[in-house]
Amino acid sequence: MSAWLQPEPSNWWPIVDDALMEDVGSGDITSGCLAEELMFSWKIEAQQDGFLSGVAIADYLLGPMPGDPDSAWIEADRADGDFIKRGDVVLKGKCLARRVLTCERTVLNFLMHMSGIATLTSQFVQKVEGTGARIVDTRKTLPMLRSLEKYAVRCGGGHNHRMGLYDGVMIKDNHIAAAGSIQKAVDRVKEYASHMTKIEVECETIEQVEQAIAAGADIVLLDNMDPFQMRNAVSKFKGKVLLEASGGVTLDTVRAIAQTGVDLISVGALTHSAPGMPFHLEAS
Amino acid sequence: MSAWLQPEPSNWWPIVDDALMEDVGSGDITSGCLAEELMFSWKIEAQQDGFLSGVAIADYLLGPMPGDPDSAWIEADRADGDFIKRGDVVLKGKCLARRVLTCERTVLNFLMHMSGIATLTSQFVQKVEGTGARIVDTRKTLPMLRSLEKYAVRCGGGHNHRMGLYDGVMIKDNHIAAAGSIQKAVDRVKEYASHMTKIEVECETIEQVEQAIAAGADIVLLDNMDPFQMRNAVSKFKGKVLLEASGGVTLDTVRAIAQTGVDLISVGALTHSAPGMPFHLEAS
Amino acid sequence: MSAWLQPEPSNWWPIVDDALMEDVGSGDITSGCLAEELMFSWKIEAQQDGFLSGVAIADYLLGPMPGDPDSAWIEADRADGDFIKRGDVVLKGKCLARRVLTCERTVLNFLMHMSGIATLTSQFVQKVEGTGARIVDTRKTLPMLRSLEKYAVRCGGGHNHRMGLYDGVMIKDNHIAAAGSIQKAVDRVKEYASHMTKIEVECETIEQVEQAIAAGADIVLLDNMDPFQMRNAVSKFKGKVLLEASGGVTLDTVRAIAQTGVDLISVGALTHSAPGMPFHLEAS
Amino acid sequence: MSAWLQPEPSNWWPIVDDALMEDVGSGDITSGCLAEELMFSWKIEAQQDGFLSGVAIADYLLGPMPGDPDSAWIEADRADGDFIKRGDVVLKGKCLARRVLTCERTVLNFLMHMSGIATLTSQFVQKVEGTGARIVDTRKTLPMLRSLEKYAVRCGGGHNHRMGLYDGVMIKDNHIAAAGSIQKAVDRVKEYASHMTKIEVECETIEQVEQAIAAGADIVLLDNMDPFQMRNAVSKFKGKVLLEASGGVTLDTVRAIAQTGVDLISVGALTHSAPGMPFHLEAS
Amino acid sequence: MSAWLQPEPSNWWPIVDDALMEDVGSGDITSGCLAEELMFSWKIEAQQDGFLSGVAIADYLLGPMPGDPDSAWIEADRADGDFIKRGDVVLKGKCLARRVLTCERTVLNFLMHMSGIATLTSQFVQKVEGTGARIVDTRKTLPMLRSLEKYAVRCGGGHNHRMGLYDGVMIKDNHIAAAGSIQKAVDRVKEYASHMTKIEVECETIEQVEQAIAAGADIVLLDNMDPFQMRNAVSKFKGKVLLEASGGVTLDTVRAIAQTGVDLISVGALTHSAPGMPFHLEAS
Amino acid sequence: MSAWLQPEPSNWWPIVDDALMEDVGSGDITSGCLAEELMFSWKIEAQQDGFLSGVAIADYLLGPMPGDPDSAWIEADRADGDFIKRGDVVLKGKCLARRVLTCERTVLNFLMHMSGIATLTSQFVQKVEGTGARIVDTRKTLPMLRSLEKYAVRCGGGHNHRMGLYDGVMIKDNHIAAAGSIQKAVDRVKEYASHMTKIEVECETIEQVEQAIAAGADIVLLDNMDPFQMRNAVSKFKGKVLLEASGGVTLDTVRAIAQTGVDLISVGALTHSAPGMPFHLEAS
Repeated sequence: MSAWLQPEPSNWWPIVDDALMEDVGSGDITSGCLAEELMFSWKIEAQQDGFLSGVAIADYLLGPMPGDPDSAWIEADRADGDFIKRGDVVLKGKCLARRVLTCERTVLNFLMHMSGIATLTSQFVQKVEGTGARIVDTRKTLPMLRSLEKYAVRCGGGHNHRMGLYDGVMIKDNHIAAAGSIQKAVDRVKEYASHMTKIEVECETIEQVEQAIAAGADIVLLDNMDPFQMRNAVSKFKGKVLLEASGGVTLDTVRAIAQTGVDLISVGALTHSAPGMPFHLEAS
Repeated sequence: MSAWLQPEPSNWWPIVDDALMEDVGSGDITSGCLAEELMFSWKIEAQQDGFLSGVAIADYLLGPMPGDPDSAWIEADRADGDFIKRGDVVLKGKCLARRVLTCERTVLNFLMHMSGIATLTSQFVQKVEGTGARIVDTRKTLPMLRSLEKYAVRCGGGHNHRMGLYDGVMIKDNHIAAAGSIQKAVDRVKEYASHMTKIEVECETIEQVEQAIAAGADIVLLDNMDPFQMRNAVSKFKGKVLLEASGGVTLDTVRAIAQTGVDLISVGALTHSAPGMPFHLEAS
Repeated sequence: MSAWLQPEPSNWWPIVDDALMEDVGSGDITSGCLAEELMFSWKIEAQQDGFLSGVAIADYLLGPMPGDPDSAWIEADRADGDFIKRGDVVLKGKCLARRVLTCERTVLNFLMHMSGIATLTSQFVQKVEGTGARIVDTRKTLPMLRSLEKYAVRCGGGHNHRMGLYDGVMIKDNHIAAAGSIQKAVDRVKEYASHMTKIEVECETIEQVEQAIAAGADIVLLDNMDPFQMRNAVSKFKGKVLLEASGGVTLDTVRAIAQTGVDLISVGALTHSAPGMPFHLEAS
Repeated sequence: MSAWLQPEPSNWWPIVDDALMEDVGSGDITSGCLAEELMFSWKIEAQQDGFLSGVAIADYLLGPMPGDPDSAWIEADRADGDFIKRGDVVLKGKCLARRVLTCERTVLNFLMHMSGIATLTSQFVQKVEGTGARIVDTRKTLPMLRSLEKYAVRCGGGHNHRMGLYDGVMIKDNHIAAAGSIQKAVDRVKEYASHMTKIEVECETIEQVEQAIAAGADIVLLDNMDPFQMRNAVSKFKGKVLLEASGGVTLDTVRAIAQTGVDLISVGALTHSAPGMPFHLEAS
Repeated sequence: MSAWLQPEPSNWWPIVDDALMEDVGSGDITSGCLAEELMFSWKIEAQQDGFLSGVAIADYLLGPMPGDPDSAWIEADRADGDFIKRGDVVLKGKCLARRVLTCERTVLNFLMHMSGIATLTSQFVQKVEGTGARIVDTRKTLPMLRSLEKYAVRCGGGHNHRMGLYDGVMIKDNHIAAAGSIQKAVDRVKEYASHMTKIEVECETIEQVEQAIAAGADIVLLDNMDPFQMRNAVSKFKGKVLLEASGGVTLDTVRAIAQTGVDLISVGALTHSAPGMPFHLEAS
Repeated sequence: MSAWLQPEPSNWWPIVDDALMEDVGSGDITSGCLAEELMFSWKIEAQQDGFLSGVAIADYLLGPMPGDPDSAWIEADRADGDFIKRGDVVLKGKCLARRVLTCERTVLNFLMHMSGIATLTSQFVQKVEGTGARIVDTRKTLPMLRSLEKYAVRCGGGHNHRMGLYDGVMIKDNHIAAAGSIQKAVDRVKEYASHMTKIEVECETIEQVEQAIAAGADIVLLDNMDPFQMRNAVSKFKGKVLLEASGGVTLDTVRAIAQTGVDLISVGALTHSAPGMPFHLEAS
């Protein structure tokens, strides 16, 4: 179940710490009503069916403090990527009551958001089962959450597109217009880019696809093409470059798109419109 | 139209800067295909009807650089809180092509998320029109985006609950259980809390509401009560404390809840499940 | 003795770390004269009578390193809020000589400042004993020390006013003048402010107090009123709103002010003019 | 008037920005009662006689925004180091009402603290006038304020001791005890320290002063010696090393100490116990 | 001359600011000997022949302050990538004497290091002229300087390998040993890696090269092979994958290596062992 | 062997953490090909003779995680300052394979750079053996590495000049020209500088040396003087001030310079041009 790579903790620790501080601010003025030494046994339950993502963050916020193994006990009953049903306990533990009540909302906010993305992704993935097409995400992510959101996509069975503007070249309509032509844009990139970099070109017509391949693109994005055009592109170019469909992809349309034979289908909604998946924390 | 208070820029500059850097990383390796001095005229169009939120962020990322008024030109045709229709141009401007293509996705990600929240909020607000109930948000927000998300709620006509754990006391079931009773929890808080702090108590029964009021609560949260119970609470306690309904609130149920006479209805979905509202940037 | 809430460690760790680095800079070039492995047993003694505040910071700087319980031994003989006499040992411990001599001044600077505030606060608190008035602090604090200074006020038996501009509304003369009237200022605030927020209005005359109450203020600040005016305000409004006296409060005048029946007396000097309370660290 | 060196702005910008954010937090919820575009003319008046310090910080917080010269107007009537009388206007200006009311307390907190230090320092400096002794500060400063506090000491006519543990060697009793002897401690330091570093040794007896000089100290600290001992040290060693008096220095005792002929008198109270000097900001 | 992409300023501003602060610390205690308002006309001259890199950093540190165009005047006579001769003036300007003397060393340290790298790179590039082989850098760079060092390599006519562990897969001997085989390592990577990612495999023998190509590598690194082996690899595999030579590359050996027909030659020394190229700043 | 003072870890932890993050970025996409739990035994070998520096950094990056002593095992066979021969194992250990392969390059980059500096320094130190002259470094260091580079100089047997602009006064030709004369510059400094500060003056002629001594300099820098001039300066002024030679110092010239009798010889190349000393990490 660990085929996917966890995001580097040093990438998510700061945002988790910051999220907690954003909530706590100058202090949790409610938790002071609890005795300082009071311990509290808790469990986190899913309130809806879906795919789990974010266990490591709960672990980080509610597990033992660094260097003090006795400060808390925690146990994960389920792992990231697991399908869980409403009412399933996913984590349980025990620590100072003040601490768990202060951290509760931050923990649940991460679990809700990441599991929501994993769950929506899994719905797309199931739709294209057997077609050979990969569901991939986009850069339509929320500020500073990209690593976690792209990880959640992997937990739902999806794959990742480039992480950002730095680890892959994507030449779009505006680049082409400004550079003069696909050929000129690609040539320009090859002058300065590392030999480790792949180049993708966004195309709206079959002619553009031809130009992109001639110019040396590694991947072609079929932008808002209809299934007929996509099928045409697949029949001509599959195997020469990777073909990625994009635009107008919904749970209703995705299977038809996959059946055209494209290699990849990118879906912005995975990260920008996944509804939160609810969990609650209670005494156990 | 400026009845609401903009979030302090120093609260959102860092997250906007960080979001841009998250995307750019070691460099935008595509934009190098454009001539260094090339200027580009752009416009941002809504691709769906809804309420606008986030203009200041577009302004910050695509407007003139500090101290260099000639580096860019920008004009907002619409303001935060405006209703906009599909196809409306909301902002237009001109600056270096490399800069606008590098910043494009970051700008659109903020607009999409914030306008999505404003739009969902406005749907709830319209449902309760005329009932006197206020739609309020919760702490179910995304990491480091709380100020902006709560501002987007205001742009959609909603109101805000407390900002975090620091600016209001909310005594929940777990606090009551751990403290022994509502009375004990409230007494404990009053010992140390500032006289500027209001106290809200989460109640599941009418008996608990009575105890909360006797203990000196300023606001009572009616947690997952049915409309009959809420009406009962309203008839007994309205005017003595503020009454807030919470739990199971959807676009289908919200009007019936509002008609019970509660003062406030809190809706987590405003921030955790609002679908993104799409915009695109193109040459003008 | 733990009726008060400790400030969130994540609020003071950074300022404590920064204070140490401010002192150490590129390195403590004196401590190199000591053998690297040399251990040193130390104790910290009060050099004056007063109230203690800041033990957790000494603990943090001189206690065991995270994950290395054997790196230091530390024991606090006294707790925050305790009255201590000149010569009392408040903490003792043992660790590397280089470490303790490098941290010594930073530890003592915090203890001196915080205990100085607790001590001055306790003098005001003792003066008003039996009158029912609470001594509260202000926002006249030193940069980045507000959490710790307000905690020190609590250690001395005082109470806190709002933490900052964000957790309570305080409408002052300049706001009233600019908004047009007390009524207009309060109405404007109620439009956008959360229902969790209390509103205080600064008043210089009884007429203003009346206007503030009519406008819906929760607390009224009697600004620089003489005892006769205060008594008048108390006789008319006590119980309707909280009454806070401010201005010209000294150890000589505070009891007379308290005896007017006001609920709260705010004293800026607690944080801006408390003399440091001296401690020294020596070999034990 | 610029004989003293201003602290590097990059040293104080962060603490000033942080102080403002500490106060503003998630937003100034009072200033929203003012119209967004309303301008406000203000002046800052001293409420007590004293020496001024901190004008640059007021300038930074209330002057024009970078790159927008028309956003504010500001004028300083007095300069750091000036003697000012109660009622004197020290600065005046005009900017958005919301901005000035949000920044007011932060500006005044810095002016109050720094001018308080300058004022107390000037009292010590006046006492020793004509004796040739310099009044110098210590490391008994508040967290992250050392640069500003040491600058305030210079504004009051005092001089600075070392900035921290990194820019001068000070061998104290604990170092001597741990190293074995003054000679050993000094030898050890000379092995690794830069040739740019001066060495001071804390001495409690004339014998120790002799040892320190023999070991090669550049400065000797006469720790808690009585005037008779100091005079003895002066008669024997003046001119060979610098002699610094320390311990028990008050406004009552400082002149007698200076008259012993010591070169330097260090006074911790300058920074740890200077009462704040009050200023207020009002409409002009 | 702008074929190469400048590193994102937001990537180098922080390290440049930090470098200045590292040098200035609590303040430049020498520059205080200059009158505060004194202006100073300066020029920077090369003290050796070589290739220039780092002009933008001099510009940033010695040019006009943001929002104050009159605060300084600066002019670059030469651009990054230019060949310059001993005695050539590369930049000149005028600003406050205190500012230029405080920044001088930081400016020169960057110019010296970056131009040193550009110069050494150009020597390798000249050696392989006409062979078709590209000189590329490695990850043997100095902390936090990678973007600037890799840019300097481009200024000297070299090309860049991957920026870090995140933008390209490089399977080395230890990965192969631990994964079991080249095939297994590559398969594993393809499961989770983005389709935008290229895969390079480090090979010590022709058999390994064959395995790497069979497994689907995009690039093969010929590790420490002798020219005979390289020629063999080239004859068999050129055109199927990119071939990169590595190990034992010096100015003496590089041409022979290039003549084997490899596509790329990576040279760690470009960044880890380039001698600084000296410049000095003086009055003009 | 511990005569030198280690740099404060809080000074190098951030740069080491940052260097690792610079390399890892959004994640090490190669190490994912290794099983998550796989352990790996490693050793680091020198690939060249030289002096070691940087062991603590390897320890920090590859040793046990804070609070988890069982997460890794590490052992240093050699200490900083040791002479090591090609093939010597300097450190060995065992930890998760993913972790060691991710950190490998960062560890080696520090060892390579610091040991390179120590090795070059030791060559200069050996050349001047017996002459009594100290080899000292300069401020020609790389951004944010000054503490570590100056420590590496000490590991090679050299000594340090001032750390930065803040801990010693160095009056150069530009200062003298701008201030009017050496006397004026020194007088000005003495007005504001702490009594803990030493003053060095850069002199190009014997007349300037005389002026500097008359003005009260503690150290004189003989700038680009020939051995004859230096000898002259030594014969006249040795013992009155420290004499430092600077300019044109190479391994060929340094002994002749030392034999003139100067106290100090400063060499910029120690830090700006030391070739990296190679190490490799392999399975053990």
